[in-house]
Parts: sequence; structure tokens; C-alpha cells
Amino acid sequence: MAHRIGHYTIGFDAPPRIAANAAVAGALEAAGPLGKAFDRTFEDAYLGKPTWEQAESELQRQALAIALQKGGLAPHQIQVLFAGDLLNQCVGSTVGLAGYGIPHVGIYGACSTMALGLLLAAAFVDGGLAQTAGAVTSSHFCASERQFRFPLEYGGQRPPTSQWTATAAGAVIVGAGGGNVAVTQSIVGRIQDMGLTDANNMGAAMAPAAADTIVTFLRETGRAPGDLDLILTGDLGQTGSELLCRLAAKEGFDLTANHTDCGLCLYDRRRQDVHAGGSGCGCSAGVLCAHILPQIAGGALKRVLFVATGSLHSPTSVQQGLAIPGIAHGVLLEYRPA
Amino acid sequence: MAHRIGHYTIGFDAPPRIAANAAVAGALEAAGPLGKAFDRTFEDAYLGKPTWEQAESELQRQALAIALQKGGLAPHQIQVLFAGDLLNQCVGSTVGLAGYGIPHVGIYGACSTMALGLLLAAAFVDGGLAQTAGAVTSSHFCASERQFRFPLEYGGQRPPTSQWTATAAGAVIVGAGGGNVAVTQSIVGRIQDMGLTDANNMGAAMAPAAADTIVTFLRETGRAPGDLDLILTGDLGQTGSELLCRLAAKEGFDLTANHTDCGLCLYDRRRQDVHAGGSGCGCSAGVLCAHILPQIAGGALKRVLFVATGSLHSPTSVQQGLAIPGIAHGVLLEYRPA
Repeated sequence: MAHRIGHYTIGFDAPPRIAANAAVAGALEAAGPLGKAFDRTFEDAYLGKPTWEQAESELQRQALAIALQKGGLAPHQIQVLFAGDLLNQCVGSTVGLAGYGIPHVGIYGACSTMALGLLLAAAFVDGGLAQTAGAVTSSHFCASERQFRFPLEYGGQRPPTSQWTATAAGAVIVGAGGGNVAVTQSIVGRIQDMGLTDANNMGAAMAPAAADTIVTFLRETGRAPGDLDLILTGDLGQTGSELLCRLAAKEGFDLTANHTDCGLCLYDRRRQDVHAGGSGCGCSAGVLCAHILPQIAGGALKRVLFVATGSLHSPTSVQQGLAIPGIAHGVLLEYRPA
Repeated sequence: MAHRIGHYTIGFDAPPRIAANAAVAGALEAAGPLGKAFDRTFEDAYLGKPTWEQAESELQRQALAIALQKGGLAPHQIQVLFAGDLLNQCVGSTVGLAGYGIPHVGIYGACSTMALGLLLAAAFVDGGLAQTAGAVTSSHFCASERQFRFPLEYGGQRPPTSQWTATAAGAVIVGAGGGNVAVTQSIVGRIQDMGLTDANNMGAAMAPAAADTIVTFLRETGRAPGDLDLILTGDLGQTGSELLCRLAAKEGFDLTANHTDCGLCLYDRRRQDVHAGGSGCGCSAGVLCAHILPQIAGGALKRVLFVATGSLHSPTSVQQGLAIPGIAHGVLLEYRPA
């Protein structure tokens, strides 16, 4: 069972554990600072598939396969899988995961998907609905660019506020026992719409959602930012991260010493031309699974608030002049030796 | 807490209740056999909005507003909302529901969305994650046609197996007490891909998923079809319903006496030109909320297995030659006087 810590924050009475996690990525991510942390990387943007969309599906399929292998689990032992991605109708997840035959809950949270999936997987395990549950997500630069912006062949210019959609996937398996990382608390985000309409500045569109979720969580749990080893957002990039810290400061919380952003971890912006940083469901999923969860499991990080943010627009809604709403879901991950 | 009845079927120990439900629809649905059952119907396909997509969002906004009113609830009393739709990036839900300020879980299940949302809302209430949770979904004929098939102005011909996307929305609010309808059991579907590629015959693409979910549920709960007052699928239409009964018969279950389909309830196919029947997230949501839940609440139906089906393709995946996978999620609704 779970209980309400405040109006928004949920506490898990018997915190579910991360049983296994895995991340795979493309060539640019392999050449970045976390390159060696991925379980597998691919030089070929197609992963041997005929289309980029199918390549994205293959990223998900492989991420889950590796997570299962690392956890010593067979697919039928996963009783429910929460998965989604940025492709229209979440087809990346459907095509990538259909072959596993695992009960499938499609979710949509844009780049917040890994936090949302992890939250739901923990909820199902904590509530007795599943003994073991998984969360998977992905993004692919080439598939995303042509769907959301321009075909790559067009060679469109990107403004400095734009972010680079990661080619990556992450998979997490949650169970009732085993593993040193516990999912202890969580918060479902509210949609925040500040009227921004620039689809090339999603960091700014998502920062208010991140600020709302983080400030609400800190207030309801009575914590200061310093009580957390890390507040990890994904993916605000440089522009959105600065805005987040300003918005939180207005509410009396100085995040600067404890905050970092997945979009700022994945690439080396001094030598990789990704503008404001990384983005895409695969960015926060990849950074969490390859870089952060191992540090919590090893005790180097004791308490991490993972707040993945999503920009909930569609190309159609932007073309029709609507503002870009943001959302941010939070999961508290703690080191609790098994 | 919940418990596992079988490998796939979940039983809720303290079954959550339907606290309120509402449905709204367009002009064609208003002229159909369930026209008077809707809480509100609209002659104007735009609902006074500048685009069909925003009209769809307005359907969701109104459905939830009416459900809240009927339940005597304020938005802040709903602690989590599960919502999704067919529009790219589920933007119908985002735009329609952002103004409520309710914690938002985006889900994607195509036309299975209402069953999926209801299942998750019940799971959150049962597991103590929320006292009150909601599920909302919608579809809009005009917005859907131009996104999935052709712009209406093109005047494309529709084959006899095609279904008519309903212009409708449904909203359900689930709580721990109150109301005569209890959500007692549920089953998360598995993706089924039989290799069908005809986007104008989604009934056939979804029937295997419906058959798998229904047969699995009946086997795991030890029930015969006759133990249920109604097995309600949505939306297989005529073609898919016939196929479902044939597939279930092969597994030893004769569904013919107890099965009906939301896509066959919403319109009068003798006088309304909808070909194989209705479809779209709003079809099963509308039929459930306007027509079925009131009958359970009144005791006319005692036990209904609601199995909404979704076709998990995208226009891109179909154009790239991939098959159309289907999914079906099930929720058992029982009459239990409050």
C-alpha cells in the first residue's frame, strides 16, 4: 500500500526496488562523456533496420533484453510493462516490445516518460498488482527531427536554445525485493502552460513544470534541497536549467548546489554541437539507467530526486498557434542496501 | 491492495467504486440510438473552437466538468487523472485538461484508452495512491480522419470494413466509496500482431487482442461467458465482432449470446452510413459512460466485462509497411449496492 505524504506526494509503504536496469545509445552518445557507461552503443543510426523509426524500436527491444539478462529474468516474469516514446501513437514502443508478450501499458509523457513509467511500475509493485514490473522508453534523433521539425536532408538551422534529441533507450525493472535502490516516494506532475510557443526552446517551456514539481515535493516532504544528494531533471538543457533555478529561488529554494540536468550530462557541449543540451525520452532514461542508478546502487549517491520533464506539444498544436505545455513527474530513489 | 488471480488477472481487495461518469458527443452520435443518453451533445463539429483538434479537447474538458458536477466534486479533489487520445502526442487530452490543474498521467492505448484509464484509476485508489482518481478520453471524426487517413475535403471512398471514428468523450471518476458500480477485477492486455496491414480494417486487427484478453480472463477466473451479463468490447465493429466470436469459439468459449460491441451500439447502421460501426477512443468511452454504467448502477446489469480494444499503428508505421498490432484491456464492473 501507499500513503499520501501531502496532497500531491505519494509514499510507498514497502518501497519497491530496482531489480535491473540497462541503457543503449547511438554514436554521438557513445562519443560523449557517458559513452562507456552504456550497456551497448551503435555506430549505425539504422541499427540494421530499414527505417529510423524501426531503429528506435530496436533500441527499446535491446534495452529491455539487456535489463532482463542483467536481472536474470525471463520476459514472462515481468507482469506489466509501462512504455512510451515521442513517435506518433507511441509506435516505437509498440513495435519494439510486442515480441516480448508482456502485458503492455502505453504511456505518454514526452521526455518525462521514464519518470512516469518508473512511478507507475513502482505503484503496481507496491499495490500488489504485479510482482515485477518494467518501464522502457527511447528516442531517436533522426526519427524525431523529421517528425517534429524538418527532414534532416533539409539542413534546417537550429537556434542556440534548441536541444539535441538523444538516440538512446533505457529500461528499468522494478520488483518487491533485491537491489540496493529503492523507489521510496513519488509525485505525479500537473500540466503547466506559461504561454510559450517556441518549439525550439522546450527547456523554457518545461522549466515551470519542473519547478512546480520540485517545490511541491520539497514543501510536502519538509525537505531542503541539501537533504538530497542530487535533484536530477531531464531534459531542460542549459536554458531550461537556468530558468528552473530562478523559478525555484523565487519560491525560496536554492537548487544551484544540488541540481543537474540529464540534458547537460549526456554530451560534452564544448566539443559536441548539441546547442542547449540533450533531450528526448532516451536522454533522461539513458542518463538515469547508465549513469545515476549505478551510483545509487554503489552508495555513492544516497538520495536522488529524479524529475523528468516533458513538453506536451504536437507539431499540429504548434502550427495551430497553441502554447507548449510542460509536465514533470518525480521519483525519489534512495540507497538502501539489500 | 490487489492480488493476482492468475498470471494476468488482477483482483482488487477493496474494489474501488465509480463515483461519477459523464459522456458528451457530436451530432451524428446525438442522432443515433444512444443520443438521449449523452449528458450533452453538440450540433457544431467545432464546438465554437477554431480547429477540430481544439474541439476534441473541448469534448474532454466538458465531459470531465459534467462528471465533476454529477459527483459533487471540485477538480482539486481528483488526485490523479489518466487521459489520452488518438491525436499525435495525445494533445487532445493535454489541451483539454491542462486548465484543471490535476496531476496528469498521459496514457496511450488508442481505442482501448477508457479501459486502460479506468484500470489505472482503480489501481491507484485500491493501492492507496489516490483517494479519488479519474479517467478521460475522446475522439473526433474530423480530426482523426485527416490525421490517420485523408483530409475530409478529399472525399476519399471508405471500404465496407472501415469504421466511423466517434465524435465523443467520456469521463469516469473512481473513489473508495459511494456509487453502486464496483471495479472488482482487471487485466492488462498483451500486444497481438497477426500481420494485418489494412488500416481500413481495424476490427480484424484488434479482434485477436480482444480474444486473447477475454479468453485469458475467463480461464483465470474460472468463469463461463454466461457468468457475465455482458462482454462489452469496443470497438471491433461488425467485422471484428464476428472474428472475435470465431476466435473465442476455437478456444472453447461461445461468446455469441453475451457479447456486444460499443461500435455496434453507438450508431444505427441501417440508417446511419458508418459502414462496419463506430470506433475511436470516444466510442467505447461514450457507450460505457452514457449507456452501460447507468444500467449497472441501476442493477439492470449485474456483471459486465468491459474490454476496450486499441489498434496501435501510426500512419507512418502503416506507410512503412508494418503490420497493425492490437491490444485489449479488460475491467470487470459489478453491481454492488452502496
